[in-house]
Amino acid sequence: MTSSIDSLDTPVAVVDVSRMQRNIQRMQNQANRQGVRLRPHVKTTKCEQVVAAQVKAGAQGITVSTLKEAQAFFAQGITDILYAVAMAPTKLNQALALRRAGCSLTIVTDSVAGARAITDFCRTHGERFEVFIEIDSDHHRSGVRSDDPVLIEIARILHEGGAVLKGVMTHAGESYKLNTLEALQEIAEIERSECGMAAEAIRSAGLPCQEVSVGSTPTALSAVHLDGVTELRAGVYVFFDLVMHNVGVCQLDELALSVLTTVIGHQPEKGWIITDSGWMAMSRDRGTQSQQCDFGYGLVCDTEGKLIDGLQLRSANQEHGVASFEEGQQVEIEQQFPIGTRLRILPNHACATGAQYQAYEALDENGEISLWPRLNGW
Amino acid sequence: MTSSIDSLDTPVAVVDVSRMQRNIQRMQNQANRQGVRLRPHVKTTKCEQVVAAQVKAGAQGITVSTLKEAQAFFAQGITDILYAVAMAPTKLNQALALRRAGCSLTIVTDSVAGARAITDFCRTHGERFEVFIEIDSDHHRSGVRSDDPVLIEIARILHEGGAVLKGVMTHAGESYKLNTLEALQEIAEIERSECGMAAEAIRSAGLPCQEVSVGSTPTALSAVHLDGVTELRAGVYVFFDLVMHNVGVCQLDELALSVLTTVIGHQPEKGWIITDSGWMAMSRDRGTQSQQCDFGYGLVCDTEGKLIDGLQLRSANQEHGVASFEEGQQVEIEQQFPIGTRLRILPNHACATGAQYQAYEALDENGEISLWPRLNGW
Repeated sequence: MTSSIDSLDTPVAVVDVSRMQRNIQRMQNQANRQGVRLRPHVKTTKCEQVVAAQVKAGAQGITVSTLKEAQAFFAQGITDILYAVAMAPTKLNQALALRRAGCSLTIVTDSVAGARAITDFCRTHGERFEVFIEIDSDHHRSGVRSDDPVLIEIARILHEGGAVLKGVMTHAGESYKLNTLEALQEIAEIERSECGMAAEAIRSAGLPCQEVSVGSTPTALSAVHLDGVTELRAGVYVFFDLVMHNVGVCQLDELALSVLTTVIGHQPEKGWIITDSGWMAMSRDRGTQSQQCDFGYGLVCDTEGKLIDGLQLRSANQEHGVASFEEGQQVEIEQQFPIGTRLRILPNHACATGAQYQAYEALDENGEISLWPRLNGW
Repeated sequence: MTSSIDSLDTPVAVVDVSRMQRNIQRMQNQANRQGVRLRPHVKTTKCEQVVAAQVKAGAQGITVSTLKEAQAFFAQGITDILYAVAMAPTKLNQALALRRAGCSLTIVTDSVAGARAITDFCRTHGERFEVFIEIDSDHHRSGVRSDDPVLIEIARILHEGGAVLKGVMTHAGESYKLNTLEALQEIAEIERSECGMAAEAIRSAGLPCQEVSVGSTPTALSAVHLDGVTELRAGVYVFFDLVMHNVGVCQLDELALSVLTTVIGHQPEKGWIITDSGWMAMSRDRGTQSQQCDFGYGLVCDTEGKLIDGLQLRSANQEHGVASFEEGQQVEIEQQFPIGTRLRILPNHACATGAQYQAYEALDENGEISLWPRLNGW
């Protein structure tokens, strides 16, 4: 067989385009069903071709995690961009340059000091930044609580200081720690209601709050209703990964990203198959370590993407992976997986694994491969 | 103050050039004292300027972890290159192209199948590859044991099959798990003696084995003597990191790599300082997690590189880091670390953190900054 995947040098990040398309459609259907816009978080792929597929399916605007992503996707014609990390004052110049170039960039703050830095900058530069206030809906990371008086203080500073107070946004990152539909539905409802209450509090103070933006892949897919929400954000759903499988929002055959690797050696007495997929190829992400099912550095498939029962990448050095079967499995590894054998590894975390590569190899249903560059750095 | 570090966008990887130079000299001194060549492993930095400093200090040849590194450093004038990962047959064409271009590339194998693939390729292409046999000195990963009859079989296949059997090499990766001088000296001696015995076994079989190449940063620095060894390999010593500090081979003030970050928010009730150094900036490497002292995602310093007592980057999302003091420490975080504050984080693992960046910002003793590009990918 000489399908084009066999011609690739390893290690390489392979995207199963059919699976990706189904994942994109699944999330878009959920947004459509709930009557909200979908603003995908492009931090997972940082890839023009993937984002084009999301937009084609119905996404409206994108979310980014760095201003470099904003610059790149704006250069590719996307104008409606949310930079979803609290704005550092030193980065306002970069944001200003994007807005002056015609990008409808929305920025985020969650503090009085942050809001003041933005409005000071607005006045100095005669620019009306559009701003979301970040809400802490689940005690996960950043944001202000919906019932904290500071929320109204921030809103007032922005509105009266010359910024456009566009709305509120939240991200229920705690959802990654859950693994039952009931718990996911509950946190999705908390995410929705907390963000909605924050919007109501702002409106009750006589201030504008048009947008209510929520989301994470687990909550977005689990939400029963999204009343009061205007847009949904999610990122990793486009590829899914082993962490999301453990959370319970995807099946293993929905994982669209894998690392193609080559067997380079064995330690037969230990049952070790040595591969060229070390942590540089997989990333150091061991997200499943703290979940109910620890998948090591990844689950091993054949080149067709079919799981090999019991075979896992159990440890990794920089350019060496060590795969082995479960204890008790009797496998003649040197005979069944001789040097030169190609395998595909499903990763813990698609965002982290993708970041180890400068491009994806996109494998379509005909076995054709296209190179899809991705962005890295800041 | 307006030193040039203040003008950098964050997050960014900063190299303290003075510390780096001292680290380079320290390892070179050890090699000189032991009467062996130093062949630094450039996988840590993949950076022309760093490698130039190593060569200037006395390094002879380099070790690489990918053929892309070999290509890049050969293009920069380094001809004596050891590719220290067992050769995948599919990569022999790349290796051949390098040799035909004039690169003295040495490759590695540890199996009969690997040796046969190399000699078959030698015959087909009329090329006499120079080859090291990898020895398993510490049951860590790859390699053949010094007393395994397969060692002589591999040596004979190479020698009689048209390759140049150049020598043996080993890497005592288990040394990373140790943390006392006595244990490090012991594993350094095992690494030396096992590799030496392998060389002797090959020579006793009437086969050539000129080179005996050993090393890892912990063993290289701990070896009491290196009788029979011809060259030393080590990589991470050039920057050191928190893992190496826990192993016991460097002081915290010898760490030459840090991530410059900006405070972007707070959760005052929790004592959280939110930074723009998430795992994308630090890498997901949590190497200290299994050591005697878990440093989280890193130890926090001020912009001068001075440690801030008790402050640690305790968790990380993609573009958010969460730093906090130890329980019981009373610190007014919003006042002492207001939004916009710059900090520097010492990473777990310099190889992994560096790989998140396309360049280092090299900070010299005068506070001047130079951009040092690095290589990534395969």
